[in-house]
Amino acid sequence: MLNVAILGASGYTGAELLRLLLNHPKVAIRALTAERQAGRPYAQVFPQFAMLDLPDLVKIDSLDWSNIDFVFCALPHGTTQPIIAGLPDHVRVVDLSADFRLATPEAYEAAYGLPHEQPELLKAAVYGLSEIEREAIAKARVVANPGCFPTGAQLPLIPLLEQGLIDADNLIIDSKSGTTGAGRSPKEGLLFAEVSEGIHAYGIGTHRHGPEMDQELSKAAGRDVRVRFTPHLVPMSRGILSTLYVTMNAGVTLTALRQTLEARYQNEPFVHVLAEGQAPQTRHVRGSNHVLISLHADRNANQAILVSAEDNLVKGASGQAIQNMNIMMGYEETLGLSLTAQFP
Amino acid sequence: MLNVAILGASGYTGAELLRLLLNHPKVAIRALTAERQAGRPYAQVFPQFAMLDLPDLVKIDSLDWSNIDFVFCALPHGTTQPIIAGLPDHVRVVDLSADFRLATPEAYEAAYGLPHEQPELLKAAVYGLSEIEREAIAKARVVANPGCFPTGAQLPLIPLLEQGLIDADNLIIDSKSGTTGAGRSPKEGLLFAEVSEGIHAYGIGTHRHGPEMDQELSKAAGRDVRVRFTPHLVPMSRGILSTLYVTMNAGVTLTALRQTLEARYQNEPFVHVLAEGQAPQTRHVRGSNHVLISLHADRNANQAILVSAEDNLVKGASGQAIQNMNIMMGYEETLGLSLTAQFP
Amino acid sequence: MLNVAILGASGYTGAELLRLLLNHPKVAIRALTAERQAGRPYAQVFPQFAMLDLPDLVKIDSLDWSNIDFVFCALPHGTTQPIIAGLPDHVRVVDLSADFRLATPEAYEAAYGLPHEQPELLKAAVYGLSEIEREAIAKARVVANPGCFPTGAQLPLIPLLEQGLIDADNLIIDSKSGTTGAGRSPKEGLLFAEVSEGIHAYGIGTHRHGPEMDQELSKAAGRDVRVRFTPHLVPMSRGILSTLYVTMNAGVTLTALRQTLEARYQNEPFVHVLAEGQAPQTRHVRGSNHVLISLHADRNANQAILVSAEDNLVKGASGQAIQNMNIMMGYEETLGLSLTAQFP
Amino acid sequence: MLNVAILGASGYTGAELLRLLLNHPKVAIRALTAERQAGRPYAQVFPQFAMLDLPDLVKIDSLDWSNIDFVFCALPHGTTQPIIAGLPDHVRVVDLSADFRLATPEAYEAAYGLPHEQPELLKAAVYGLSEIEREAIAKARVVANPGCFPTGAQLPLIPLLEQGLIDADNLIIDSKSGTTGAGRSPKEGLLFAEVSEGIHAYGIGTHRHGPEMDQELSKAAGRDVRVRFTPHLVPMSRGILSTLYVTMNAGVTLTALRQTLEARYQNEPFVHVLAEGQAPQTRHVRGSNHVLISLHADRNANQAILVSAEDNLVKGASGQAIQNMNIMMGYEETLGLSLTAQFP
Repeated sequence: MLNVAILGASGYTGAELLRLLLNHPKVAIRALTAERQAGRPYAQVFPQFAMLDLPDLVKIDSLDWSNIDFVFCALPHGTTQPIIAGLPDHVRVVDLSADFRLATPEAYEAAYGLPHEQPELLKAAVYGLSEIEREAIAKARVVANPGCFPTGAQLPLIPLLEQGLIDADNLIIDSKSGTTGAGRSPKEGLLFAEVSEGIHAYGIGTHRHGPEMDQELSKAAGRDVRVRFTPHLVPMSRGILSTLYVTMNAGVTLTALRQTLEARYQNEPFVHVLAEGQAPQTRHVRGSNHVLISLHADRNANQAILVSAEDNLVKGASGQAIQNMNIMMGYEETLGLSLTAQFP
Repeated sequence: MLNVAILGASGYTGAELLRLLLNHPKVAIRALTAERQAGRPYAQVFPQFAMLDLPDLVKIDSLDWSNIDFVFCALPHGTTQPIIAGLPDHVRVVDLSADFRLATPEAYEAAYGLPHEQPELLKAAVYGLSEIEREAIAKARVVANPGCFPTGAQLPLIPLLEQGLIDADNLIIDSKSGTTGAGRSPKEGLLFAEVSEGIHAYGIGTHRHGPEMDQELSKAAGRDVRVRFTPHLVPMSRGILSTLYVTMNAGVTLTALRQTLEARYQNEPFVHVLAEGQAPQTRHVRGSNHVLISLHADRNANQAILVSAEDNLVKGASGQAIQNMNIMMGYEETLGLSLTAQFP
Repeated sequence: MLNVAILGASGYTGAELLRLLLNHPKVAIRALTAERQAGRPYAQVFPQFAMLDLPDLVKIDSLDWSNIDFVFCALPHGTTQPIIAGLPDHVRVVDLSADFRLATPEAYEAAYGLPHEQPELLKAAVYGLSEIEREAIAKARVVANPGCFPTGAQLPLIPLLEQGLIDADNLIIDSKSGTTGAGRSPKEGLLFAEVSEGIHAYGIGTHRHGPEMDQELSKAAGRDVRVRFTPHLVPMSRGILSTLYVTMNAGVTLTALRQTLEARYQNEPFVHVLAEGQAPQTRHVRGSNHVLISLHADRNANQAILVSAEDNLVKGASGQAIQNMNIMMGYEETLGLSLTAQFP
Repeated sequence: MLNVAILGASGYTGAELLRLLLNHPKVAIRALTAERQAGRPYAQVFPQFAMLDLPDLVKIDSLDWSNIDFVFCALPHGTTQPIIAGLPDHVRVVDLSADFRLATPEAYEAAYGLPHEQPELLKAAVYGLSEIEREAIAKARVVANPGCFPTGAQLPLIPLLEQGLIDADNLIIDSKSGTTGAGRSPKEGLLFAEVSEGIHAYGIGTHRHGPEMDQELSKAAGRDVRVRFTPHLVPMSRGILSTLYVTMNAGVTLTALRQTLEARYQNEPFVHVLAEGQAPQTRHVRGSNHVLISLHADRNANQAILVSAEDNLVKGASGQAIQNMNIMMGYEETLGLSLTAQFP
């Protein structure tokens, strides 16, 4: 059994890691940390676990690392760097924060407004978009789990950019997210009465997942990409739907886009290209690690619309983190992740 | 008092017309029709009116037109044409269906798959986007109330196209709607359990409001426009948020866009350009006839993002219909429409 | 015009007072206070008012009372007493907090855990259940607006207890509330992701509205009453549905209950007894000051079930406060309160 | 492997059976039936299963029963009797309809308005409240899976009635349900816009789960019981919360109630008595087979309040059906049912 600790277990991604790992046949949960709630039984923080025998919440500095092989780090960005830097060498890590996603200290500081404290560690960390970076992930000690929006946008776009099928200058990503992406800390804007029965855009032109997408899509395109990305808050707890507006390069057809994506993902257990005429719904991946992708003809001949659906807490966070752990440990990649979406 | 009949009063737009008209000082509700529910008290169909003294539902052919001056026609598209053609000449009409929005029988047939039965009437009808077509509306006998999506998309885009500030070839309209836009007829896809806690796109590249937008934006641009439009269904009852991705023409700045819209709408009671840094929420117009518009810099220099919010049942349907009636009758345009949004 | 100030205007009841008062023909809004947000335009706190010309938020101690005739006090309980005690004599008040609802300092301290600081003022204050205490309200200087749960429970029960039709020893009030009753201060338990797609009971056997109901129902029954009251939190923003289980006294029939309520409320503009076979829905009173009441036979012969529906922010708070103002000022009681519910 | 068919697989309970059975190590899904949708791939009806290899939907009369060992029958009540009567003898059945829950043809006809066509089969069928009827279930060929409301109400009440701790004459069950209990057939009252942002009671004094509860609670009490039961529709997809108002018999304390329930359920994997001071939320059992029960002091000395939470589609339907299958087949009772609730 792999001895696992979840750092920052009192948030939504922590609870989701636990929900999924409890079905993982090779994992034993050894520690759950939460600085402010240390000492409390975990079920006081998330009562759905009341019937299980779980370790109480503790502080990170009280952990005995000799018993821990693997860490999921679900701490807020900015607080993560010293923690990961302080881990013993034998411990491998998937970090769910944003702290190791951007490849350089400069990019990190530009996006997050703070100098990066661990540039060496940053250099060694691997960006963990599982289906794209599988080989590097397998060898990494620290994997930076991708952002929720970048995951759903990159999976459809990367193969098309790699093949030069679409215009890298004109990529529009209009994303709609549930509220759990914003975490569990109480804020007026996340109250039920402020979220239900309405929708709005936020972080327009400024959201920090924009530079993350730029970085990865630029790699795929072999040139600089700057996406046009707008996130929206939808009255739902989970799920991200991304509507992608692309312009096809001269001579490229929708069929070519479809064939490229189907070929790329045909053997992937978690990425599915829908049949013609179908469009994905976030509720059909709710609670699962799957990503659904559809392609649609635009009324303008050289343009196309793609849609992707994911659960922001699973493939967009905790599920992909476990998928990455499976890759790192050489386990079957679907272990702990075989759940079908819970719908209705 | 203006003697008003609502044809098709058993749907959501019918109920919303009634809710608003009950506060209109110059209107008397003389008749409410619903073919299948004729004979029932209106409060059996919409219990929120139980405390009011309203006419029972009747069939259209039982109406005594000598008592009716003005009709709101809220019937399904395709059924509306013979009804309006059969109205006596003294009756003026705002039609909330799609039957008189597209300017030619050819355009109608292409979009709705049916030949238009009343081409003469179609020619005479005026497209009722109140702020844009006010003069023509004032003189019209039949006004075609705009679609819900076109209303929210056209108000920000028309002034920019008229001024040649943005590229008419590259207009992306990503819209998110509540469920009432789909009506009250029971369908599996509109059940609570199928709509809540999720989001999806529909009618991708094929929605009938695309050609309607093309028509009106082409007028504004002075050339053919074909928008890229994708509607989405959001778990909320009311509201449309449209996120508009535009490319500015050479030398045009975001400030120029802002100034153009501010100038155009500064004296309009229902269209509001938000201050820099603000973004609209549909819940802030819920139940009101207001449209909120914001402008945002993109991370790409020559591009901009606009967002508009409306209530699909008010400015997107029944409210704008009343606004048009006010224009047609020479009333103050805000009569019956002074309600502030109901939030929370 | 009556010069009105709203103290504590940054909460939901403050915004709802404003929404309704803007339609009141005899009221001028002179001041809006919020201690922590003083200095901000009101529309920054509630953007739905952005198109209106409203006074900025100020601190209470900056008010010039010579310009104010009437105050709505929407401050948290416990903070209200010194504020109201400090008002000049010419200012009349409806207090929406709980501070003047319980008749004695002892009852207040028992329920709220704090000594009452203004026992004289408490003695003079009138409990403002409009339909029941109309005469006393008309003469009062300070009216204590009832709690949201007590309003919906007492209106059906008081006439039945007064007539001795039901057993005062066996009153069960099972109430279901939207989230706005809990206010706008951020708390984990009110986050969208914690409220949506679920329901739970809270304050079981301990909620502070229990003693308030006891007090008023005891008056009606002429003997001590101690209700069994359980509130529940429902994923909706507004509304309270109360299901009332009563035991009829010997020889009493459901018809007698119905006739008593119908007779009592037949001329009331805001309280409506539904026809046999109908049951109220909170959505049919959403945004309106109406209360709907239904009566139902139980399968047990001597028992009955009543259901009441109200909007907790309107009849349960701000609407009833305005109704009370109308009574106090000798205005027509429905002024500013004529809105039909907003459904859907 | 047990060869399983799901009859009526196109409804919500059918999909939920499938979601859960896909994790069951001893079950092979051999057939999925749906009369009107026969011929369609299952994923067209429930797209969340698109990535799995499942049998297409077929008609019941096309099944080859020699390949089927076990049937879950999720057909509408009234249509189920001839189907089950026609099954070959070797096939064992859990029936999720109401057709075999009431013990006598007379009780069935009184509640459902139709004569029972299979009185012999009815006599042989076993009522499948797993924790209470485990021994009879183990031996049964046909198990009648309990109704969703009765499951959540009976588990807390039966032990208390069996011990004579509470008054069997005064049992109030106020239940709040999500919408999936009403099925997937389109009806106006189940549309999103009719369900969201509101709550109402229905079937007051007449719901068919009343007689079912009477029957089982009468068995427990050893005398005739007639409960007071009111269901409510809550804007959520899943979950039932039942608030139970009980009167304790002379000399009985809340502690005695607690000890009785704790003792009865201490070794049950799916029924959990919460610690003092805690109250259950439906979201903490969402998607799981667990039932949470809490006990609370009333402000009246001889009375108590209990609350139970379940997922109506799991313990209230498909989960309990699988639990019953496990009991019938001698499998470990938790097989396929080990999922933790999906929250948020």
